Amino acid sequence: MASVRDLPNYASLPEAQTKAYAESLDSQDPLQHLRDEFIIPTIEDLQRDTISREGINKDSPKSIYLCGNSLGLQPRLTSERIRAYLDQWSTKGVFGHFKLLKESSELPPWVDIDDAAAAKMAGIVGAAPNEVAVMGTLTANLHLAMASFYRPTKERWKIILEGRAFPSDHYAVESQIRHHNFNVDDSMLLIEPDSAEHPTLSTEKILSIIDRHASTTALLLLPGIQYYTGQYFDIPLITAHAHSKGIMVGWDLAHAVGNVDVRLHDWNVDFAVWCNYKYMNSGPGAIAGMFVHEKHGKVDMEQLQSGQGGYRPRLTGWWGGDKSIRFKMANRFVPIPGAAGFQVSNPSALDLTSVLASLEIFHKTTMKDLRAKSIKLTGYLEYLLNQACSSLLSENEKDTSSIKSALPFSIITPTDPHFRGAQLSVRLSPDMLELVMVELEKHGVVVDERRPDVIRVAPTPLYNTFTDVWNFVHIFQDACSHAQTQL
Amino acid sequence: MASVRDLPNYASLPEAQTKAYAESLDSQDPLQHLRDEFIIPTIEDLQRDTISREGINKDSPKSIYLCGNSLGLQPRLTSERIRAYLDQWSTKGVFGHFKLLKESSELPPWVDIDDAAAAKMAGIVGAAPNEVAVMGTLTANLHLAMASFYRPTKERWKIILEGRAFPSDHYAVESQIRHHNFNVDDSMLLIEPDSAEHPTLSTEKILSIIDRHASTTALLLLPGIQYYTGQYFDIPLITAHAHSKGIMVGWDLAHAVGNVDVRLHDWNVDFAVWCNYKYMNSGPGAIAGMFVHEKHGKVDMEQLQSGQGGYRPRLTGWWGGDKSIRFKMANRFVPIPGAAGFQVSNPSALDLTSVLASLEIFHKTTMKDLRAKSIKLTGYLEYLLNQACSSLLSENEKDTSSIKSALPFSIITPTDPHFRGAQLSVRLSPDMLELVMVELEKHGVVVDERRPDVIRVAPTPLYNTFTDVWNFVHIFQDACSHAQTQL
Ligand SMILES: Cc1ncc(COP(=O)(O)O)c(C=O)c1O
Ligand SMILES: Cc1ncc(COP(=O)(O)O)c(C=O)c1O
Repeated sequence: MASVRDLPNYASLPEAQTKAYAESLDSQDPLQHLRDEFIIPTIEDLQRDTISREGINKDSPKSIYLCGNSLGLQPRLTSERIRAYLDQWSTKGVFGHFKLLKESSELPPWVDIDDAAAAKMAGIVGAAPNEVAVMGTLTANLHLAMASFYRPTKERWKIILEGRAFPSDHYAVESQIRHHNFNVDDSMLLIEPDSAEHPTLSTEKILSIIDRHASTTALLLLPGIQYYTGQYFDIPLITAHAHSKGIMVGWDLAHAVGNVDVRLHDWNVDFAVWCNYKYMNSGPGAIAGMFVHEKHGKVDMEQLQSGQGGYRPRLTGWWGGDKSIRFKMANRFVPIPGAAGFQVSNPSALDLTSVLASLEIFHKTTMKDLRAKSIKLTGYLEYLLNQACSSLLSENEKDTSSIKSALPFSIITPTDPHFRGAQLSVRLSPDMLELVMVELEKHGVVVDERRPDVIRVAPTPLYNTFTDVWNFVHIFQDACSHAQTQL
Repeated sequence: MASVRDLPNYASLPEAQTKAYAESLDSQDPLQHLRDEFIIPTIEDLQRDTISREGINKDSPKSIYLCGNSLGLQPRLTSERIRAYLDQWSTKGVFGHFKLLKESSELPPWVDIDDAAAAKMAGIVGAAPNEVAVMGTLTANLHLAMASFYRPTKERWKIILEGRAFPSDHYAVESQIRHHNFNVDDSMLLIEPDSAEHPTLSTEKILSIIDRHASTTALLLLPGIQYYTGQYFDIPLITAHAHSKGIMVGWDLAHAVGNVDVRLHDWNVDFAVWCNYKYMNSGPGAIAGMFVHEKHGKVDMEQLQSGQGGYRPRLTGWWGGDKSIRFKMANRFVPIPGAAGFQVSNPSALDLTSVLASLEIFHKTTMKDLRAKSIKLTGYLEYLLNQACSSLLSENEKDTSSIKSALPFSIITPTDPHFRGAQLSVRLSPDMLELVMVELEKHGVVVDERRPDVIRVAPTPLYNTFTDVWNFVHIFQDACSHAQTQL
């Protein structure tokens, strides 16, 4: 993981509150040039209900887009690469599957485009190239993964997950348990936070639940980063602990991939799934990813030849089969070793083109450097939010006629940078959310709301600036102040 | 199904062999204008190993692309719609999920783009809009479908499929059987053709195998159109027969969708899956489709509320959940009634945009009219091939020194238009394939080869012409003649 030792102690710097300071952080940022790789919507772009560029105001200021945790922005390269893909299809037709093109290593023949994407993606999640497949969609991949990694028996059949899991994971697990004819009530172990006030989960709590159900649990499924609280779990420690009790471990990395520098191989994770539309900037619903640890992807040809298995059981399809015999139509499945052997279908070349374009940008830096910037950026956001909170509080306290002396908002994301990524989740005091959101939108700020009272603010290190953060907090403080007068 | 009564009896028309006749068929074709909706690669386009348009010969003649059964050509509209999608993403960011745009009903907010695609797709497969979901990939959808429709018991656990099934279907079925801990050897019933010479399967044979295993079979899975032989199965009759024995019936429509006018609802099919990159012209690996009959998609809210099921068991994900509560994160799954309730993930808007663009072209005509043209076009291909075969044969017979008096090729696809779609599969005499393919490619003909001896020729009614067919057969006849001199 990236070091947090270099993190400035903003609170000790009186000038840290000034816009000039934010700007100076930007000018010292070694990754600042990467922002230019993205199309940042202008405020007018966001507000108008058209997409045509005719008659638009080119001088409209750029929005403050802090929503990469929900949908990442579009790399400039994406449209260029998609244009090339469209030309590849329209000029080559079916030959596009095999024809090597002269002009660009960025346009692999489609029969190899999945490997190209996996190779480029592997470093992002700390995996070997053959441990990653870019395929399917997150929840579909989770089902494929569970078909292989959740093999319940009468002795071990439970699945541990969070009580506040993202709904899709909850539903997927619930339906898998039913699929195997187990009873949901005594098979689905939900880790609940200690209180609604503090919705994060301590590592101790997780470990103790593992201990309590060690002998009857088949699988542990947790998110790398929790979508609601922004909590970053201790993946290596939790994985090792569960393994020590004989439990398989899978991670949903929807909010972690491209955000924090995970090291799935070294951390000995069994499998992981993710989507590529958040920090991976590949567009809404873009083709997803799956990690299968090397140890689970092995193919023993001798055993296979003799009809005794030879590979980890799974639900199969032709695209997971050995490429050299794939088109021989012999109906004898020989999996590709590694994650690629879990593929079932020929993947969308269009979607992969979008993922590849995004990965080109990631390869202009490293996850380590991105994470280092992210820690600073999110730390700065936290510092300014705390300052704003104090100011709002003292404003209220002056107004003795009001009952608004409670904190106008609080941050529910852990304060320790090791336990969070880019996102801070901010809980507003009751009834403020709608009022605040209206103001934010008016000023071209994009953050994500989770009713009734939480906004999630995610400065992403690839395209957000310290000035974005500064601007956001000032608009947000005004919005809170405005909302308080309305209540 | 479209009527074949209007099919001209080409053999009784002496002029039918002339190019002028082919051209006259084109000029009378009410769908001829649809060809202009597609980008037909030129011969030079196919041959050069670049995509750039610089310095290319604009007068290069168009290729004869008879490979829509493998990868359909690109509609002109596709790049325009994708350009708009990219603008939607780059100007609206995350608001693209919900924002209604003024300029075009062709750019639904992404939260509704799946419904838009399903509604436009439904007519293509003879389904009600809520019986179709545009989602996932073919083999992944097949697994999701089998998770719901293949629920083996000790009494009924077998799956009937063809012995020469497309590998992915074979693997999917095999792995599902293993997944349920049954023995593949006595669970997978493979219908084999009577002889390698005649690789089609008679309806009687299929029905008799159903009868033989009626009481132990859980599922019948067949292709609407067989990928290798081009045989179009009698879906309504086979489905009804299997149903009468209590067997569930699924169809793989990879080669049938957009090709023949199936009526999945009326034929009472339980489920079907397909891909959209063949006759559906949505690009390599494009997002796929799934049909679930209305009767299986019902949701009984009372039962559901009382915790007693209320819907057909399946593997679930949040995108299959009721839209009005989807973002409430309450972790109580309430499926959308119909096929949409089988969705698991938020789908690729980019891929759906490509499918929607293609569907716009389909909606300029009807499947009934397309099928009517297709029957004529494929009939004309068959007639000319038969003529060519006779000419080649008499050529050979003159050459008494040779042993080449056997037929140079034969058509293995059924001769009855009711039992085939656009594709004719042609088996060449031994060792001719490579030689013929070289000649075809040289002359800008694109067909698909299946080694060692079959080519599949698929004139697709949306963009192929009678003149394409005429040109193809003349080039093919020369190629055969040339190949014979080389052997
Ligand atoms: C008949 C048939 N079934 C299944 C498939 C597999 O499709 P996918 O790779 O999209 O899952 C194909 C692919 O060509 C096919 O032709
Ligand atoms: C943590 C988490 N898991 C799962 C999902 C579901 O993803 P998909 O719809 O791509 O399957 C999401 C979507 O936002 C998510 O945030």
